[in-house]
Amino acid sequence: MAMDGTDQNNLEQGIYTKDATHLRKNGHHRRSLSDLSPSQKCGAWVSHFQQLFVLFIGADWIYLMLLGFVVAVLSFTVDIFVDLFTEAHRWIYNLADSHVVLQYLAWVTYSLLLMCFAAGFANIVSNKATGSGIPETKTSLRGVMLQEYFTFRTLVSKVISLTCVLGSELPVGKEGPFVHVGSVCAALLCKFMSLFSGIYKNKSRNEEMLTVGCAVGISCCFAAPIGGALFSLEVTSMFFLTRNYWRGFLSATFGGFIFRLLPVWNRKEETLTALYATKYRLDFPFDLQELPIFAAMGIVCGFGGAFFVYLYGKISLFVKKQQAKKSFLMRNCFFYSALVSVLISTLTFPPGFGQFMAGQLTKKDSLISFFDNRTWSNHGIVADFDNDDYLAAWKHPQANVFIILSVFIIMKFWMSALSITLPIPCGSFVPIFIIGAAFGRLVGEGLATLFPDGFNVDGHIYHIVPGAYAVIGAAALTAGVTHTISTGVIMMEMTGQISYTLPILISVILANMISQSLQPSIYDTAIRIKKLPYLPTLSWGHREKYNIYVEDFMKRDVRYITLNSTYRDIVKILRSGNLKTLPLVKSAESMLLLGSVERAQLLGLLTQRMQHNKQNASTMPNRYKVRFQMSTEESASATNAKPMKSALKKPSVDEEEITSVYDSGLNLKKFFCSRPEIEAMEDDSDAEDDTILQEIEEWEEQQLDEQVTFNSCKIDPAPFQLVEHTSLHKTHTMFSVLNLDYAYVTSIGRLIGAVSLKELCKAIEGNTPGDGVRLRPVLSTFRDRGVRGTRTETIALHQLLEHPLSSCANNI
Amino acid sequence: MAMDGTDQNNLEQGIYTKDATHLRKNGHHRRSLSDLSPSQKCGAWVSHFQQLFVLFIGADWIYLMLLGFVVAVLSFTVDIFVDLFTEAHRWIYNLADSHVVLQYLAWVTYSLLLMCFAAGFANIVSNKATGSGIPETKTSLRGVMLQEYFTFRTLVSKVISLTCVLGSELPVGKEGPFVHVGSVCAALLCKFMSLFSGIYKNKSRNEEMLTVGCAVGISCCFAAPIGGALFSLEVTSMFFLTRNYWRGFLSATFGGFIFRLLPVWNRKEETLTALYATKYRLDFPFDLQELPIFAAMGIVCGFGGAFFVYLYGKISLFVKKQQAKKSFLMRNCFFYSALVSVLISTLTFPPGFGQFMAGQLTKKDSLISFFDNRTWSNHGIVADFDNDDYLAAWKHPQANVFIILSVFIIMKFWMSALSITLPIPCGSFVPIFIIGAAFGRLVGEGLATLFPDGFNVDGHIYHIVPGAYAVIGAAALTAGVTHTISTGVIMMEMTGQISYTLPILISVILANMISQSLQPSIYDTAIRIKKLPYLPTLSWGHREKYNIYVEDFMKRDVRYITLNSTYRDIVKILRSGNLKTLPLVKSAESMLLLGSVERAQLLGLLTQRMQHNKQNASTMPNRYKVRFQMSTEESASATNAKPMKSALKKPSVDEEEITSVYDSGLNLKKFFCSRPEIEAMEDDSDAEDDTILQEIEEWEEQQLDEQVTFNSCKIDPAPFQLVEHTSLHKTHTMFSVLNLDYAYVTSIGRLIGAVSLKELCKAIEGNTPGDGVRLRPVLSTFRDRGVRGTRTETIALHQLLEHPLSSCANNI
Repeated sequence: MAMDGTDQNNLEQGIYTKDATHLRKNGHHRRSLSDLSPSQKCGAWVSHFQQLFVLFIGADWIYLMLLGFVVAVLSFTVDIFVDLFTEAHRWIYNLADSHVVLQYLAWVTYSLLLMCFAAGFANIVSNKATGSGIPETKTSLRGVMLQEYFTFRTLVSKVISLTCVLGSELPVGKEGPFVHVGSVCAALLCKFMSLFSGIYKNKSRNEEMLTVGCAVGISCCFAAPIGGALFSLEVTSMFFLTRNYWRGFLSATFGGFIFRLLPVWNRKEETLTALYATKYRLDFPFDLQELPIFAAMGIVCGFGGAFFVYLYGKISLFVKKQQAKKSFLMRNCFFYSALVSVLISTLTFPPGFGQFMAGQLTKKDSLISFFDNRTWSNHGIVADFDNDDYLAAWKHPQANVFIILSVFIIMKFWMSALSITLPIPCGSFVPIFIIGAAFGRLVGEGLATLFPDGFNVDGHIYHIVPGAYAVIGAAALTAGVTHTISTGVIMMEMTGQISYTLPILISVILANMISQSLQPSIYDTAIRIKKLPYLPTLSWGHREKYNIYVEDFMKRDVRYITLNSTYRDIVKILRSGNLKTLPLVKSAESMLLLGSVERAQLLGLLTQRMQHNKQNASTMPNRYKVRFQMSTEESASATNAKPMKSALKKPSVDEEEITSVYDSGLNLKKFFCSRPEIEAMEDDSDAEDDTILQEIEEWEEQQLDEQVTFNSCKIDPAPFQLVEHTSLHKTHTMFSVLNLDYAYVTSIGRLIGAVSLKELCKAIEGNTPGDGVRLRPVLSTFRDRGVRGTRTETIALHQLLEHPLSSCANNI
Repeated sequence: MAMDGTDQNNLEQGIYTKDATHLRKNGHHRRSLSDLSPSQKCGAWVSHFQQLFVLFIGADWIYLMLLGFVVAVLSFTVDIFVDLFTEAHRWIYNLADSHVVLQYLAWVTYSLLLMCFAAGFANIVSNKATGSGIPETKTSLRGVMLQEYFTFRTLVSKVISLTCVLGSELPVGKEGPFVHVGSVCAALLCKFMSLFSGIYKNKSRNEEMLTVGCAVGISCCFAAPIGGALFSLEVTSMFFLTRNYWRGFLSATFGGFIFRLLPVWNRKEETLTALYATKYRLDFPFDLQELPIFAAMGIVCGFGGAFFVYLYGKISLFVKKQQAKKSFLMRNCFFYSALVSVLISTLTFPPGFGQFMAGQLTKKDSLISFFDNRTWSNHGIVADFDNDDYLAAWKHPQANVFIILSVFIIMKFWMSALSITLPIPCGSFVPIFIIGAAFGRLVGEGLATLFPDGFNVDGHIYHIVPGAYAVIGAAALTAGVTHTISTGVIMMEMTGQISYTLPILISVILANMISQSLQPSIYDTAIRIKKLPYLPTLSWGHREKYNIYVEDFMKRDVRYITLNSTYRDIVKILRSGNLKTLPLVKSAESMLLLGSVERAQLLGLLTQRMQHNKQNASTMPNRYKVRFQMSTEESASATNAKPMKSALKKPSVDEEEITSVYDSGLNLKKFFCSRPEIEAMEDDSDAEDDTILQEIEEWEEQQLDEQVTFNSCKIDPAPFQLVEHTSLHKTHTMFSVLNLDYAYVTSIGRLIGAVSLKELCKAIEGNTPGDGVRLRPVLSTFRDRGVRGTRTETIALHQLLEHPLSSCANNI
C-alpha cells in the first residue's frame, strides 16, 4: 500500500515521538548499540540516522538559510528579467527612430502589452497577487490568517506579473510585493519541510516564520539586512519577542548575501558592495549649519507623505466606487490598467513631455543620478560631465535643472499614487523613494547654487554635497508615507554610507511626527479601504487611551450557554449569530463563567445526539426510524474514510451541511434529517399521511427540550478575561501581544460583557464613516486629552453581589 | 498653609480631571470665552494656559528630548573628567621620570587612590551603584521593580565613582553603568515631571520609559542611536510593542546628537562625525575570498565569548564564596579593589611588563590604533609612521607585533574578567570590544603578512585592510559575550563605516550561535549569580519547550481562601507564607476560582474587624475594652494625617506592624492588640489577674472563629489563568509579554494549581545547582529534542467533573 505524504509524515512523527518519550522516561539508561544483534544494529543505525536527519532538518538555521536563499534567487531573477525588458524597450525605441510617431507607438505599445499581460496573468492565475501584499501580510500576522494569500499559485502569479509590471516602467516598486513573496515562500517552505520534520506543523512557530519572510523580502530587494529586519517588524508586527529577533537577522543576512553574491558570480560586479554605493567625503560629512535645513526637509517630507497617503486614499475610494457601480472603466481587469499605462507612458515619452521630466531614465538610473556625489548645477545649468548618460537626462536647453526636477517631482507624485491603485502587483516604497530623492536633490542643488563657496571651517573649504540631501530626502519622504523609522537604516545600507546617521534620523523622526499626526500610514489606509480585520495601532500621542475603560465600550448583551441549556437553546444560539466560540456559564442566575465552547463542538453535540437517538429510538415513529438509520449509516461510512483527521480536532460532521439546514428556516423537521432525506420526503409527500408527520414533529419537539449533556464536549476552561476597569491602553496591549479576537469581561467570575476586535477598533478610532477611511484633522491628537485619576482595576465584592444582571438576562 | 509637592500635584490633577470630565460630558457645547465677565475671562485664560502647559509637559517628545539631553550631558561630563584624570596620570608619570621606582610608584599609586575613592564612594553613598546595572535594569523591566536601584542617591554614586574608576584606567567600560544611569535618569525625570502632569504617574508608561533610558544610555556612550535603541531592546526587554519603537529612537537620536554636538561647541571637533571615524576604501571593501576568514573569526569569537562568560562566572562565584565566608580579602570594600588595582597597574606599567602589551595606551587610544586604516606590519615589524604616538606603542625592539598583540589579548582577557567582578561601577562591553579588536587586528596583520600583494581583481590590486578585521573582531567578540546582534550596528555607527555590513553580520551571527549554545549571556550569568528574580529566555533552539505542559511543572498545593473562611484561617494563611496575592475560591469543595485578593487587603480586613469590635464590643471583657479603645484611637488619629493616600489604595493599617506581630509567634492575644499595648500589658503583667487573661483569650478565640465578610475587600476578579495543557513555550510567552509573576492553573473555573516565576524558571533550566550558575555542555540544545504530537489545549468536561481534588484538599 502506497502511503501518501501525510501518512508517512504521521508515521515518522510517530517513530520520533516514541523515541523521544523513551528517552524522556529512561533518562540516561539508553540501550547502547553493542547490546544488539547485527540486523537490529543496522535497523538501529538507520533509525538513528533518520532521527539525526529529522533533527538537522528541524534546526531553525537550516530553514532560515534556505528561505534566504530562495527569496534572494527569486529577487535576483526578477531583477535580471526587468533589466532585459527595459533594455528591450530602449532597443525597440531606438530602432524606430526614423519617425517620432513610430517611436511614440513603440514606446507606448511595449509598456501597454507588458502591462496587459501582467494584469491578465495576475487576475487569471490568482487575483490575490494584486496590490502590495503588505496589508494582507500584516493582517495575517495579527492572527487572522488569510490562507489563500499564501499559496503557490499566488506566488507564481505575483512573481511573473510583477516582473512584467516593473518591465513596463510603471512607477511602482518591488519591495511591497517582495514582502508578500517572502512570506509566501516562508509559508510554503514550512509546508515542504513538514514532510520531513513534525516541528514544522506547529502553528505559532510558522507564524513567527512569516515575519522572517517579510524581513528576507525587504533584505533581498535593497541588500539591506538590518533595515529589512527592522522594517518588517515595524510594518507587519504589533509586537515582537526578543528571543525571535535573531531569526530575521540570520535569514535576512543570508538572503542579502546571496542577493549580492549572484551579480559577482555573474561577473557583473567585482565584490559585495551596497546596491547604490555612494562616495561622499567621510572627514566632514556636513556642517552644523546644514542641520536646520535637514530638519526642515523632514517636516516638509512629513506633510508630503501625509498628502501622498491622502491622495492614494482618495483615488482608491474612487476606484472602489467605480468597481461597485460596475462602470464601463472597471468592467474587466485590463481596461483601467491599459488606460493608466498609456497615460503614463505618453507623458514620459522622451521626445515629448518626457524631456522635461527625464522620461528616459529607469527608476534605477534616476536613483543613481540623484545619489551622484558631484554637484550638477552651476547657477541652474547642469555642468557637462563627459559620457554620463544619467546626468544628460537632467540637462535641457530651454529649462534649468530646478524646473526639470520640480516637474519630475510633481508628475511622479500623482503618477505613483495612481499606479499603486491598479489591480497589479505593485509597491509604493521605491516610487516614493525616488520622489524623495528628487526633492532632496532639488534642495541640495538649490543650496549649492546659493552658497557656491560652501563652508569655511578652520581654513578648510567644504562644498555642499547635494547627493547627501537626496539621501536624506528619500529617507524622510518614505518614512512619512510608511510611518517607519527603519527607512533611515535601509537608506544607509543601500548607499553604503553611515556618516549621515544623525541628519537622516532627525529628518526621519520629524517626518514621522508630522505625518502620523495627519494620516494613518499607507498600509493602514489600504487595510481600512480593503476592510481587513486589523487592530489599528495607538497613535503617536495616545494618552487619552489610559482613561477609557473596557466597560465604556464592551458589548453588554452576550449570547451564552448554561449547563442547563436545552438542545433547542443551542440550535437557537447557533442560528442567531456567527460567533466562533460561545461562553459557558454555570446558570443564567449566577452567570459564573466556566469556559468557552467552540461552535464546531456544539454542532458536534447536535450530531452526536442524532446518532444517540438512532440507537435508543424506542419512542421514534417507525417509518422515520428506518429512514434515519439509513441516512446516518451513509454518513458514518463517509466519515470512515479519513478517521484520523476527524477524530483529532473536528467532530465527524460537515459543519456547512448543518448550518445550511439551519439557514433554510426553523423547520424542526429538517433538524434531525439530512438533506437527501428531506428531498426524498418531499418527493413522495403526497403519499404521506399527515398524522405521521405530526407524530414526528411532536417527537422532535420533545427531543429538543432535553438538557444538553456536555460530557463529550471539549471546553476551553480559561478563555481570556478582562476586568471592566481595564484601560483601553492595556486592552490594546493584550489584544496585540496575545493576538486575541475576543475576550470576556468578568466581575468575580461573573460574565458581564465581551469585547471583540470590532469593539476595540471602534473604541480606538471612534466611528469610522462608511467608506472606511477617516481623514483625521490636523494634529487631532493634541485635542481633548483628559487625564482622569488612575482607577484601580479591582472592585468591591459587595458591589458585585448586587450587580444588576438585567443586561444579560434577556439573552436566549 | 503651605502645600507640599504631593498635595499641589493632587490639586492640579484634580482641576485637570474636572475640566476633562467637563469636556467629555458637554461634547462640543463648550462655553465660549465671550460669554464671560472680564474677571471670569481672566480666570478662564489662566486655567486654559495651565491646561495647555500640562498638555505640553505631558507630550512624550518633550520628555524624550529632555531625557536625551540630560544623559548626553552626563556622558560628556564623565568623558571630560576621565580625560582629565588620564592626562594627569600621564603627567605625574612623566614628572617622575628621574627614577623608575618613583615612576612605578606614581603610576600605581595614582590608580590605587582613584580606585579606593571610587570603591569607597560607591559603597558608602549607595552600594546599588556597583556592577554594571544591566542585570538589575533587566529584572526591573521584567516587572520586578527594584526601587532602590532608581534613586537620585544611586545616580550620584554611580556617576562619580564611575568617573574615578575609568580615570584609574582599570579595563572596565562605561556602557553598562550608562544603561543604568540612563534608566535612573528616566525614572527620576518621570518623578520630576509628575509634579506638572498627572500622566507621569502611570506606572506602565513609566516602565516603557525605562527602556528608553537604556537606549539613551548606550547611544550617549558610543554616539550610536540605532545600535543603542536595538541593543537596549535586546539586552533589557523580553518583548516590545512596535508602537513604542519610535520612543527609543527619538530619545537616542537626540541624546547622540547632543553628545556629539558638545565637543563641537567645545571646539574639540569640527563637525558631527562618528566616535571612531574610519577611512577605509569604499569601492572595494573586501574580497569574496576573505569571507570564510570573517566567518572563522566569528566562530572563534563565539568560543572566546563563551569562555569569557565562563571565566567571569567562576571568578564571581569565588568572590561570592569569600564574601559569604567573610574572609580577610572581603572584610571591607577597599581591600579587594585595591589589590586588583595594584596587580593590574603593575602589569601595565609601561617600562615593565607593560611594554609587551602597549600598557601606556588608554582604552580610547588602543581602539583608535586598532581601527587605523594603514597596515602596521611588514613581516611582523611595525612600520615607522611619523608622529604617531598610538602606533609607537605596538613597536618593540625585541618582540614583533604578533607577540605583542597576543600578549595584549591574553592579559586583557583575564584582567577584564577580573575587573568586572569588583564592587565598583563597571561595564564589560568596552573591554571586550578592545580584546575583540585586538584579535581582529592580529588576524588582519597576519593575513597582510601572508598575502603582501593583496588581491588582483580585473587588473586592480587591492591590499588587505587589517583595520576592517579589527572592526569585525570587535563586533563578533562583543556579540559572543552579550548574545546580541545589534553590536554589529553599534560597530558600524562607531566607525562611521557601513560597507562591511555583511561580514560583520555574518561573524556576529556565527558568534551568537556558538556562544548561545555554550553559555548564557554575561548579563544572564550575573542575574543568576545575584539570584535576581528573572525569567530566562528560551535558548537558541527551543523546540523541546513545545512538549512540556503546565501540568508537568505547576505547584499543586496552592493556599487559598474561600468565601466561608474564618478570621482564623486568614491569620493562618497570612502567617504560613509570603504570597503577595491569594486566590479566592467559592468553597473548598467546588474550588471555583472567583478572583484573587492582595495580602494587604486581607490585613485590612483584620484591622477593620478590630475597629468594628471596638464599636460593638458588648461581649468584650471590660479592662481589655478600655485599652483597646485607647490604642485604636491613637492609630486613628495617626492615620488621619494623610487621609487621601490611605483612602485610595491601602487600608489604613501599617502592614509592617501587623506582620511583625504575626512574626512574633501565634500568640492570639497579640493579634487584637497593637504592639505598645502588649508591651504595656507585659510590663504590669504581675498585676494582672489570670482569670481576666483567660477571659480575653476566650473572647478572642470566639472572634477568630467568625466568618470573614469580604464586603469592603477589593478583589481582582480576573487573575491570570492558564490551562493545564498550555505548553511551556506558550507559558513563557505569556509570562514574558504580560510581565506575570504568577498565574493560576484552572480547569473549567476550578483552581487546580499555580505557576510562579520560580516554577517556570526551573522548568526552563532544569534544576540549577546551589551556586546558581550552570555551565551547560557543548551544543546541549541538540540533545533530547522530542516532538510529541500537538495536544489541543482544551479538555473534556466529564474528566473535570470527576477531577481528583485531593491535591488541593489538604490545604488549610
